Amino acid sequence: MRALGKHLIVELYGCDSRLISDVDYVQDVMMLCAKEANTTIIDSLFHGFKPYGVSGVIVVQESHLSIHTWPEHKFASVDFFTCGDHSDPWKAFKTVKKKFKSKYFSIMKMERGVLLNE
Amino acid sequence: MRALGKHLIVELYGCDSRLISDVDYVQDVMMLCAKEANTTIIDSLFHGFKPYGVSGVIVVQESHLSIHTWPEHKFASVDFFTCGDHSDPWKAFKTVKKKFKSKYFSIMKMERGVLLNE
Repeated sequence: MRALGKHLIVELYGCDSRLISDVDYVQDVMMLCAKEANTTIIDSLFHGFKPYGVSGVIVVQESHLSIHTWPEHKFASVDFFTCGDHSDPWKAFKTVKKKFKSKYFSIMKMERGVLLNE
Repeated sequence: MRALGKHLIVELYGCDSRLISDVDYVQDVMMLCAKEANTTIIDSLFHGFKPYGVSGVIVVQESHLSIHTWPEHKFASVDFFTCGDHSDPWKAFKTVKKKFKSKYFSIMKMERGVLLNE
């Protein structure tokens, strides 16, 4: 049985509201995550909402990384979807957790594109 | 108990390889999905890989939609992450399944940002 991709679904609670409000900081952290996961960046999109909140995605050769933040709840939802044995989304998880000073979290790993017949 | 977002994790098997190879078609379908789900598009990024495969993300006011296709496996992984009661990712799911002529699929709905204390 083979899976095409690994997808980490991360819920970060108890984050530093100031940090996850800052679109430039969030973008820098996610770019660092892409590097830590050993992915190759194709392009990225980040957007700051009024009055607060950031959304961002990075398309990488190996799939994508995404984030949505709710500073008012000290919360961020993060997805790391990577393909290929060379990339490691767990390293990105460690980075994002640390950089947003998340106090507690949930994480789930999914296999995407499970191919039973190959 | 309140959740900030709804996330549909969709695996589409048995897709039409020709359709999911075509970056313009994939983008058009995902844009239609964003509309069907009643989301407001902020920006989008789509990329065609050599020799085949498409990756794309749409950042919407309500979070994001993403897709990765593997035409060689007739397979696409699609995520619809939306916030707010006005948006309905299930409508997007019906659209993408039909437009890629997927023969079978798996789907999982997750609640993102579950806030126990509010």
